[in-house]
Amino acid sequence: MQQFMDKDFLLKTETARALFHQVAAGLPICDFHCHIPVRQIAENKPFASITEVWLGGDHYKWRAMRIAGVPEEKITGNASDEEKFMAWAATMPKLIGNPLYHWTHLELQRYFGIDEPLNAGSAARIYKDCNAKITAMRPQDLIRTSNVKLVCTTDDPVDSLVFHAALRERNESGAQILPAWRPDKALNLNADSFLPWLAQLEEVAGKRIENFAGLKKALSARMQVFHEAGCRLSDHALDTVPYPPQGNETAEEAFAARRAGKTVSPEEENAYRFEMMRWLAAEYSSLGWTMQLHIGARRNLNDAMFKKLGPDTGFDGIDDDAISGKLTALLNAMMATQPLPRTLLFTLNHKDNYILSTLSGALQRSGVAANVNQGPAWWFHDQKEGMEKHLRELASVTPLSEFIGMTTDSRSLLSYTRHEYFRRIFCNQLGRWVEDGEYPYDFKALEAIVRKVCFENAYALFASVR
Amino acid sequence: MQQFMDKDFLLKTETARALFHQVAAGLPICDFHCHIPVRQIAENKPFASITEVWLGGDHYKWRAMRIAGVPEEKITGNASDEEKFMAWAATMPKLIGNPLYHWTHLELQRYFGIDEPLNAGSAARIYKDCNAKITAMRPQDLIRTSNVKLVCTTDDPVDSLVFHAALRERNESGAQILPAWRPDKALNLNADSFLPWLAQLEEVAGKRIENFAGLKKALSARMQVFHEAGCRLSDHALDTVPYPPQGNETAEEAFAARRAGKTVSPEEENAYRFEMMRWLAAEYSSLGWTMQLHIGARRNLNDAMFKKLGPDTGFDGIDDDAISGKLTALLNAMMATQPLPRTLLFTLNHKDNYILSTLSGALQRSGVAANVNQGPAWWFHDQKEGMEKHLRELASVTPLSEFIGMTTDSRSLLSYTRHEYFRRIFCNQLGRWVEDGEYPYDFKALEAIVRKVCFENAYALFASVR
Amino acid sequence: MQQFMDKDFLLKTETARALFHQVAAGLPICDFHCHIPVRQIAENKPFASITEVWLGGDHYKWRAMRIAGVPEEKITGNASDEEKFMAWAATMPKLIGNPLYHWTHLELQRYFGIDEPLNAGSAARIYKDCNAKITAMRPQDLIRTSNVKLVCTTDDPVDSLVFHAALRERNESGAQILPAWRPDKALNLNADSFLPWLAQLEEVAGKRIENFAGLKKALSARMQVFHEAGCRLSDHALDTVPYPPQGNETAEEAFAARRAGKTVSPEEENAYRFEMMRWLAAEYSSLGWTMQLHIGARRNLNDAMFKKLGPDTGFDGIDDDAISGKLTALLNAMMATQPLPRTLLFTLNHKDNYILSTLSGALQRSGVAANVNQGPAWWFHDQKEGMEKHLRELASVTPLSEFIGMTTDSRSLLSYTRHEYFRRIFCNQLGRWVEDGEYPYDFKALEAIVRKVCFENAYALFASVR
Repeated sequence: MQQFMDKDFLLKTETARALFHQVAAGLPICDFHCHIPVRQIAENKPFASITEVWLGGDHYKWRAMRIAGVPEEKITGNASDEEKFMAWAATMPKLIGNPLYHWTHLELQRYFGIDEPLNAGSAARIYKDCNAKITAMRPQDLIRTSNVKLVCTTDDPVDSLVFHAALRERNESGAQILPAWRPDKALNLNADSFLPWLAQLEEVAGKRIENFAGLKKALSARMQVFHEAGCRLSDHALDTVPYPPQGNETAEEAFAARRAGKTVSPEEENAYRFEMMRWLAAEYSSLGWTMQLHIGARRNLNDAMFKKLGPDTGFDGIDDDAISGKLTALLNAMMATQPLPRTLLFTLNHKDNYILSTLSGALQRSGVAANVNQGPAWWFHDQKEGMEKHLRELASVTPLSEFIGMTTDSRSLLSYTRHEYFRRIFCNQLGRWVEDGEYPYDFKALEAIVRKVCFENAYALFASVR
Repeated sequence: MQQFMDKDFLLKTETARALFHQVAAGLPICDFHCHIPVRQIAENKPFASITEVWLGGDHYKWRAMRIAGVPEEKITGNASDEEKFMAWAATMPKLIGNPLYHWTHLELQRYFGIDEPLNAGSAARIYKDCNAKITAMRPQDLIRTSNVKLVCTTDDPVDSLVFHAALRERNESGAQILPAWRPDKALNLNADSFLPWLAQLEEVAGKRIENFAGLKKALSARMQVFHEAGCRLSDHALDTVPYPPQGNETAEEAFAARRAGKTVSPEEENAYRFEMMRWLAAEYSSLGWTMQLHIGARRNLNDAMFKKLGPDTGFDGIDDDAISGKLTALLNAMMATQPLPRTLLFTLNHKDNYILSTLSGALQRSGVAANVNQGPAWWFHDQKEGMEKHLRELASVTPLSEFIGMTTDSRSLLSYTRHEYFRRIFCNQLGRWVEDGEYPYDFKALEAIVRKVCFENAYALFASVR
Repeated sequence: MQQFMDKDFLLKTETARALFHQVAAGLPICDFHCHIPVRQIAENKPFASITEVWLGGDHYKWRAMRIAGVPEEKITGNASDEEKFMAWAATMPKLIGNPLYHWTHLELQRYFGIDEPLNAGSAARIYKDCNAKITAMRPQDLIRTSNVKLVCTTDDPVDSLVFHAALRERNESGAQILPAWRPDKALNLNADSFLPWLAQLEEVAGKRIENFAGLKKALSARMQVFHEAGCRLSDHALDTVPYPPQGNETAEEAFAARRAGKTVSPEEENAYRFEMMRWLAAEYSSLGWTMQLHIGARRNLNDAMFKKLGPDTGFDGIDDDAISGKLTALLNAMMATQPLPRTLLFTLNHKDNYILSTLSGALQRSGVAANVNQGPAWWFHDQKEGMEKHLRELASVTPLSEFIGMTTDSRSLLSYTRHEYFRRIFCNQLGRWVEDGEYPYDFKALEAIVRKVCFENAYALFASVR
């Protein structure tokens, strides 16, 4: 029996252990997709408590606690920090086979030096120990001790990037902190947020946006500002793939109607989204940016709780629409006028793994490695079972060495340990292939793959800004 | 090499063996979903032959025999009991990797003390031995020797429950035998069975049903009768999920039209089904019942054989419609007026595993553990490969300790051995996580999970009737 | 650690090794689905170079090279044979976990006696060695040394079969070379190829085709010619399943309109395809042919590259439409007038594995083993991960002994090693079940399964022509 989460956690073979300990463990992190507000990093204030870090916004944990029967009071309600922590600790032993069990203990081990399993019995001790240490930790310390080389925060086109400017002045994290372009609000034409967002864009752009052409012009100007601030990457929540294409004219009319305060039909919204995506891709291509499409989330699916708590509170699920035809049409439309930008396709439905990886393989750009590729196992699939499946499937139809590797996608700075989690799983998979005689024990070749997937491929997206 | 189906069958680690032999093996069975007619249990007549028990109605075996090339004559036709048994025995060696291979041998081992593999060579011997023993076995004996604590039979709202009354008078099974509410005929508005069923309901209700309100009233009265007889669980074959909602008025009109003998449009039938489900869920919630939704079967898909043999004869398959949006809408509509009842979501398409488990996670009730949860791997997926996948996926996104565990879902009293099958697979999965260092060797915590999943979680559904 | 691709490659247990080395390795190959042009086999010219064989048409390799960043010039462009080979060699080490890595080395080992891994370092040596040997190899030699008993080439109804006639005169391959019927052009009513194809059919039939009835008559005559030439098998690219049925009349009108040069609506084309498939199935049934349906490819999904390079050049992907209902309707329509022919259902989307295998199980013909069955893991899934999953899933719901086994589906005569690959994976799976105690160590029973799946089941399709 292997000891619980010891130094060889998840590493089942000699080759896996060698690859992880000698290569992967020491590699820096390129955190190209991070949900930590840049303000938190820039202000660099110490944390208040372990409850704040762990349970202040981590809706993965909230969801697990709800299913385990914890009352909402102790999740997002008014219970004390200690009560909330105790409720989480009591939930832990129920999470066998769940990534939260591993993430939590990795964080306890790496950031707090605690090797003891967290449960109702150990909770009081651990609560005290963690709080004693956490209040001495500041965001930039955590980034530095986590060996992070680069962070992309998530920023709206209307964001001023003032905290990024501040970080260029003063930054002790040892990492480049860059903005990433997340224009979801520009796409969600019918959302309540659209018109207020448009007003903000007008303000930051310093002029009225009269029509679709004006919107594009304002966004272009913002992209230029982002680019100068080091942005090299965009990010889209493409929950559903817009379809069918209906041409620029319909998109213009849809925008005009919405601008005048009307709600447009789903068809019109799709026409607008299709055309906007097509245009944005061309811009990204010109700027040398990477485009990330996150497909297949079905969000906020508890009406009552959405009204109460808003988005990103643990009430999301997975969509199951057919996407092959729609996505093929969209990406081909993007390619019609100029090359696709470097593109990463994420899916929240693992039935689509092969759809995305084979479609990607068919849309390459001559001489560019993995110009389009499936991204990592995402969100609900970002766990051992999901990652292993994703790696084996991706390897089966693409050269795995070109895989972009782990995305942090986190809302807590402690979760950099998830890169360690990924790297252990990745090295273990490589080790298995080697020790099963399916790949030669060629350490140099294996090391090259580990370096590329665990760091270099992602870091290369930012070659022009380093 | 492990011996064929010995005492450590499916148990690959020390931890797995300890959990199974010391904990799981001795737990009673809560058989909350059983297709044995209550009449058979109440009348308690000895069995006629092993062929009757094994091949009299088990369409899993029929299907395997058909694919293996056995003529229908020896499956559902007029061949003798012995010929049919021999045809089954000759099919057995072809079923490597198939659950029927394991179920059959578990039944031979546990109920007949036969350890020999069944094949053409051993068939005559085994046929004789089994028949010598089976004719001394009665249904209530089998339930008692299987250590069953509670059985829910499957009952239509119009059923008189007379056999349940008889069982309350005389029951030597050692188990509570309760009715479960299966109102499929109330939902299938366009089916030929609807109007005759409605007439039966009028008779048992003792009054005319003039409209949708009257139908609800009659069903309410029947639910009260069922509740008094100990029913705490409903069960729906929701092959397709009704959508979109169209309000009560359309549903009323659809019922009125159908009542007048017309066939309604698919849209109208869906409106009726949506509203009926919404209303039933509210009733279940008030009564404290559990609601089971079985989604994704595509039934009777061989037109010619359906005409010849009717339903439940081995001609069903799996549907692949998108369900995420439809099910989200239905469950939210149910939650609009009062809390969801305790709900179990089953799918016959494993592409939907994560859909159901993440949707469930988003629809919890504050302070109630697993108020909505995915049910066990069902029917075609109720086998080793399917169960292992289901367990790993469910654990990845929920606290596995809250899982409802095994459903018998059987048409033969010998199939209680499937609980043993499930428990071995479950303990083996826990053991693997522990011995791989992914969960501590905390026997008390592991034992608690085994107890909950293998018995307690299911038995808790009936707390108010025990 | 197991040595890289040694004699026990992929065989993890004693039982697996015994089954492979003692049984599977020596079995002949029934290559019932081969894309090698019959002309190449009949002309029997020596190969020009290893680049021609490996990279002349193998779009699996092209695709991998594109994702690895190789410029198109070195893939399908004007670079020299040596440059292309070097580009492929440099791609190889990136393909860990990919079937191309194993196929390439199996071919090097079996046909060239080269055990060294191919990479940039070994490429020059291996290029020289291979070319020295390949120019002495002729197609019929390769078929003979690969122990092939029967080959079905892929032939259009309008093909003259003149090379098959030539092969009946002179054939040193040791294998029967038979035509297979691939009438895709007869189905793709709206394609540009349809009218030219129709003209060819008129020519080969020697008469004008005035209407749908005339088309059927001409096809019937061609089927008779194929049958006399030994054809026993048809093959359809049913990328999408035609639906809904609209009767013969609509199909006739659609044909008439298209014949007059018009493009018909998608609905009309589907009506035509449905009726044509229904009619063809009846013909196949009468002739005793096997019908193969290949479902779920989404082809040519890179518009620009399709214009440049045409079909079958590595730009295909996977479709994800719902097929359960459509396919059920089509197969039932085929069964309405006479028994289904022996039918093999392939899917390019593994979400449909269980759909196809359970639907098949429901459509059997009394007394015929596996009259309908799921075919092997196809194309993107024809790799270790995909095959293992497919085998476990198929075994879970059917008697695995009736599985048709491996399909070559290849465009290179060196790829007969893929049968070895399949057989190793298959024997390994059987061995695992046995050594885990899930099936008895009954070598005779296991040997029978291996023989059936690896050769006999497929060869039996041609019993009437041997």
